[in-house]
Amino acid sequence: MPGVADAQRIPAPFKLASRAFRKRSSVIRIGDVAIGGDSVVLMAGPCTIESEEQLVRTAEAVASAGARVLRGGAFKPRTSPYSFQGLGEEGLKLIRRVADAYGLLVISEVMDRSQIAMMVPYVDIFQVGARNMQNFTLLRDLGKVERAVMVKRGLSATVDESLMSAEYVMSGGNEQVMVCERGVRGYETYTRNTLDLNAVAVAKALSHLPVIADPSHAVGVRDKIVPLARASIAAGADGLLLEVHHDPERAICDGPQSLFPEQFAALAEQLRLIASAVGRGL
Amino acid sequence: MPGVADAQRIPAPFKLASRAFRKRSSVIRIGDVAIGGDSVVLMAGPCTIESEEQLVRTAEAVASAGARVLRGGAFKPRTSPYSFQGLGEEGLKLIRRVADAYGLLVISEVMDRSQIAMMVPYVDIFQVGARNMQNFTLLRDLGKVERAVMVKRGLSATVDESLMSAEYVMSGGNEQVMVCERGVRGYETYTRNTLDLNAVAVAKALSHLPVIADPSHAVGVRDKIVPLARASIAAGADGLLLEVHHDPERAICDGPQSLFPEQFAALAEQLRLIASAVGRGL
Amino acid sequence: MPGVADAQRIPAPFKLASRAFRKRSSVIRIGDVAIGGDSVVLMAGPCTIESEEQLVRTAEAVASAGARVLRGGAFKPRTSPYSFQGLGEEGLKLIRRVADAYGLLVISEVMDRSQIAMMVPYVDIFQVGARNMQNFTLLRDLGKVERAVMVKRGLSATVDESLMSAEYVMSGGNEQVMVCERGVRGYETYTRNTLDLNAVAVAKALSHLPVIADPSHAVGVRDKIVPLARASIAAGADGLLLEVHHDPERAICDGPQSLFPEQFAALAEQLRLIASAVGRGL
Amino acid sequence: MPGVADAQRIPAPFKLASRAFRKRSSVIRIGDVAIGGDSVVLMAGPCTIESEEQLVRTAEAVASAGARVLRGGAFKPRTSPYSFQGLGEEGLKLIRRVADAYGLLVISEVMDRSQIAMMVPYVDIFQVGARNMQNFTLLRDLGKVERAVMVKRGLSATVDESLMSAEYVMSGGNEQVMVCERGVRGYETYTRNTLDLNAVAVAKALSHLPVIADPSHAVGVRDKIVPLARASIAAGADGLLLEVHHDPERAICDGPQSLFPEQFAALAEQLRLIASAVGRGL
Repeated sequence: MPGVADAQRIPAPFKLASRAFRKRSSVIRIGDVAIGGDSVVLMAGPCTIESEEQLVRTAEAVASAGARVLRGGAFKPRTSPYSFQGLGEEGLKLIRRVADAYGLLVISEVMDRSQIAMMVPYVDIFQVGARNMQNFTLLRDLGKVERAVMVKRGLSATVDESLMSAEYVMSGGNEQVMVCERGVRGYETYTRNTLDLNAVAVAKALSHLPVIADPSHAVGVRDKIVPLARASIAAGADGLLLEVHHDPERAICDGPQSLFPEQFAALAEQLRLIASAVGRGL
Repeated sequence: MPGVADAQRIPAPFKLASRAFRKRSSVIRIGDVAIGGDSVVLMAGPCTIESEEQLVRTAEAVASAGARVLRGGAFKPRTSPYSFQGLGEEGLKLIRRVADAYGLLVISEVMDRSQIAMMVPYVDIFQVGARNMQNFTLLRDLGKVERAVMVKRGLSATVDESLMSAEYVMSGGNEQVMVCERGVRGYETYTRNTLDLNAVAVAKALSHLPVIADPSHAVGVRDKIVPLARASIAAGADGLLLEVHHDPERAICDGPQSLFPEQFAALAEQLRLIASAVGRGL
Repeated sequence: MPGVADAQRIPAPFKLASRAFRKRSSVIRIGDVAIGGDSVVLMAGPCTIESEEQLVRTAEAVASAGARVLRGGAFKPRTSPYSFQGLGEEGLKLIRRVADAYGLLVISEVMDRSQIAMMVPYVDIFQVGARNMQNFTLLRDLGKVERAVMVKRGLSATVDESLMSAEYVMSGGNEQVMVCERGVRGYETYTRNTLDLNAVAVAKALSHLPVIADPSHAVGVRDKIVPLARASIAAGADGLLLEVHHDPERAICDGPQSLFPEQFAALAEQLRLIASAVGRGL
Repeated sequence: MPGVADAQRIPAPFKLASRAFRKRSSVIRIGDVAIGGDSVVLMAGPCTIESEEQLVRTAEAVASAGARVLRGGAFKPRTSPYSFQGLGEEGLKLIRRVADAYGLLVISEVMDRSQIAMMVPYVDIFQVGARNMQNFTLLRDLGKVERAVMVKRGLSATVDESLMSAEYVMSGGNEQVMVCERGVRGYETYTRNTLDLNAVAVAKALSHLPVIADPSHAVGVRDKIVPLARASIAAGADGLLLEVHHDPERAICDGPQSLFPEQFAALAEQLRLIASAVGRGL
C-alpha cells in the first residue's frame, strides 16, 4: 500500500517547466530587468495601492535602495467580503504612472480572467495569488497574454503542484513564467505562515523557471522578515517580493508586515553581500 | 507577542453565517429534499461524467440505496493541463436527464464565474471546489444565483475561512449555502488527505449552515472511505458527498476512491443505524 | 527524485505488529475485560489523580455508565517544569484501591524506564504518552513486563512509526500491546489537536493490534469531544480513552476537556447504538 | 471561543530561557570555543560512529575546513528495533580520542538518563534528539550535569515548547543550554522535513540562548542541504550541525544526507562570507 498521495501525484508531471525540457535556467527579460539571471531582483512596495502620495514616497524609497519592480494591489483577495477590496483600475493607473517616473516595472495581482484585458496596459508582471494558484481558467487565459506571470504557491501546495500551475500558463504559449514561495500554513502562531526554503531549493533543481521568495507574507512580522529575506537569497532565490510602506502604521492592510523604507535600504545592503557570497549581483 | 495568526483572523468574522445571527440550524429545501434537517442526505455519483450508460447505472444504484442527489463533474479542475478536463455542457445535459429519470437532484462543480449562467438550467446545487474556496469573484457571483451552493473547504483552510467563503455568497443575497469538509493536507501517505471531523463539530457550533462531509476525497482509498463515512455522520455531519461508480476499474478519474454500488448500499444501511443513534433519519 | 520521505520509511517495516504476521485481530484479555474483541471498551477517569474523593466519585460514575478501565495519571509530562507533576506512588496506591472497589482495571502513564518496576503492582495497562512514543529505551523495557502496554501516537507520527513503536515493545516479548490515536498537530486553534480517524482505519488494516482513540486530548473542548467520541467508534476504534472528572471546574489539569459524569453517561448510551451499527457491543 | 491551542500555551511560559530574564545573548564557552558569540560555530561529522578510520578521515576534513565540534552518535534512536543501534561506550571512546587529536569538541546524543553518567567523560555537549525533546526525566537530569546541552526541536513542537524544554534543563541549575532547529514534519516528499527558519528568528527574539540549525536532518538530500545551510546562517543561526562522512556511499546510516568532505569545505567558504554579511565571523 505504498503512497496513495504519491500515486496521485505521479500521473501529472510537468513538461515545459522542467529542467529535463530545458537545462539552462530561464531568464525573463522585461526592459532592462532580467529575472533569473546573474542578479537577484527586488520587487517592493505596498500591499495595496492607497494614494498617489503613498506610491510616490514608497517608490522613491525602494528605487533608490535598488528595487527594480514596484508591487501594489488594485484588486485584493480579502478573506472577508466586508474588507477593503482595492482601488481597481484607478489604482492601476496610479501605479503605472509612478513606476514609470522612477524607472520601475509594475507587478500587480489579477484575481479573475475577466480582469486580464483591462490590466494589460498597466502591468509588466501579472501576479497570481496563493488562493488562485489552482484557478485553472485564470491560468489558461494568462497563457495567451504578452506579459510575464508570477504564480504564487498555494498555502499547502506541493512543489510539483506549483510547477504544474506554471505549466498551465506555459502550455498556452506564454514562457515568461516564474513561481513564488510565500510560506506554507503551519501550527506556529508567532508568525503568519512558515517560509519554506526547502521548496526554493527543490524548485530550482526541478525547474528552469525563476523562483522568487515572498518573506513578507510568509512571516508576517516586520523584524522577522529581514532575516528571512536574507535567508531566501542565501538559499538561491532569484528575487524577493517585499512589502514596504512609507508609513506602515497607517497602512490600510498588512501594516505589521510592511518594512519601513530605512529597514528596506539596510536590508538591501546585506542582500548585496549575500548575493555576492553565492556568486550573484543585486 | 501572542498570536499573529490569530490577530489576523480576528478582524474578519462572519456575520450572516454565524449562529449568533441565526440560532436555529438552517434547512435548505430543494424540491422534497431538505438539507440540514432531521434527515442526513446522501449525495453520490461518479467523479466525472463519462457517458449515459455510466450515469444511468450509477444513478439507479445510488437512488435505490437511498441517495437523494446525483454528483458528477462536467468541468474538472485537474492539476495537469494535459489531463481530461470534462465533457462540459454535454455532460450537464446528460446528468440532468438521468437525475430527473431517477428523482434525484444534481450537484456539479463550477470552476469560473463565466460558467454560471450556462449551468443554471442543469444543476440544483453549485459545488465550489477546494481549490476555488477563495476565488472571491466566483463566490460573489454565486451570491446572485437562485441555486444552492456548496463551498468545499480548501486544503488547509481554517473553519473560519471556510465560513467566510460561505459569507461571501450570502452577502450577495443567496442564503442557500452549505459548507463541506473534504480533508486537510497532511504528511501521511497511506491516504490522500486527512478527514478533519473536528472541523465538522466546530463548524456546527459556530454556524447555522448545513455541513456536509466528503470522505471520498479526504481518504482516497475505497476500503477506508466506508468507516470514515460512518464516522462523519456520527460526528454530526448533515450529509455525505461520496464517489460511486458502476465500474470503478474503468473510471476515467478517481477509480481507487470510487465505491462499488454494493459497497454503497451496505454503507447506507449502516448509516441509517448511526443516524438513528444521533437522533436523525436517512 | 521520488519520495525521499517514503524511501526513508520503507526500510523500517514492522513485523510482529503486522496483519501479514497475524491475520486475525489480537484480543488483549485482562481479567474479564477483552480489548480488541467483540465489544468496544471505555477507559475513563481524570487527567491526574488528585484525591480519594475525586477518584471515588469519578470511578463510581464511569463504572455505572459502562466503563471497564479507570484512567488517572500519577506522573504528568508537563510542558513546564513549574507545573504540578503528579502524586507519584501515593497516587497509584489510591487509584488501584478505588479501581478494585468498582471492578475496574487501571491504566496510568509511565514516563521513564526507572518507574516501571515500582508501577507494576498498581497498573494493568502501562500508557506510553505521545511525547514518549519514540523513547526507545522505555519501549524496550516495557517489552519485558507482564502488563499490557498502550502506545499513544506522537503529535506528528505516521501510522508506520506508531506501529514501529508497538513493534519495539513486542520485539522484547510482550504481545499485549495496543496503539492509541490522540490527534495530530494542526493549524486550527479552535481545538487542541486534530483527531485523525483516517489513522484508525489505516492502523486497523495494517495491524492486528487493538486501536484505541483518545478524543479528549485530540479535541480539547468538552462539547466537541462527544461527537468525536461517537465518530471514533463508527470509524472502527476498539475503545476510547476519555477524561471524566466529577467536578471539572475544579480539576487541577485539563478541566475544559473533562466530561461531566452525566455527559459521559449519555455518550455511553449513544456509543452502544453506534457499536451495534458496526456489529459490536459495548 | 478564541484559541484553545493558545490558551493551553499561555499558562506555561519559560522564565530562565527568556530575553526578559536576560537581555544579552548567552555565550556558551567550552575550551576556546564560544557558542552564541561573535562567530558562528560549525559542528560536523558522521551520523553514527562506525570505525576509527571513518572518524579520523572525517575529523581531519571538517577540522581543516573550520569546524570546531565533531558530531557522531554512539546511541542511535532508530525507528525500527531491528536497525543498527550504535557502538555504545566503545564509540564514545573513539570519538573522544579522535576529536582530541584534531582539537575538536565532541557532541553526541544521549537517549536515556541512565546513560548520562557514563557519557560525561567523553562528551562536551549532550545532544537531546527531537524524539526526546519532551522526555522530561532526561531533561531534568541533564540540569544537574556539568556539560553543555543542545535540545533539538521535536518534529512538530512550537518554539515555546522548545524553549520550555530548555527551561527544564536550566531549572535544574545548568545554564549551558542551546536549542536546535531541525525541521518540522510537512507533506512534501522531495525532502525529509521542512527546515523552519521562521523558528530561528522567533527563538532568537524570545530567548537569549544560542540557536543552532541542523539542515542535514531537516532536508535529507545532499545537494539541497548546502543552500539551506547558507540560509540558516543568513537567518541568524549561531551555528550549524551538519552530517559529513568521508565516504557517504558506504555510510551505515544517513548516507544520502551526508556531505562529501570537499562539499563541506566549499560550503564553509560561502558561510564565511554570509557570516560576514550579518556581522559575524566563522
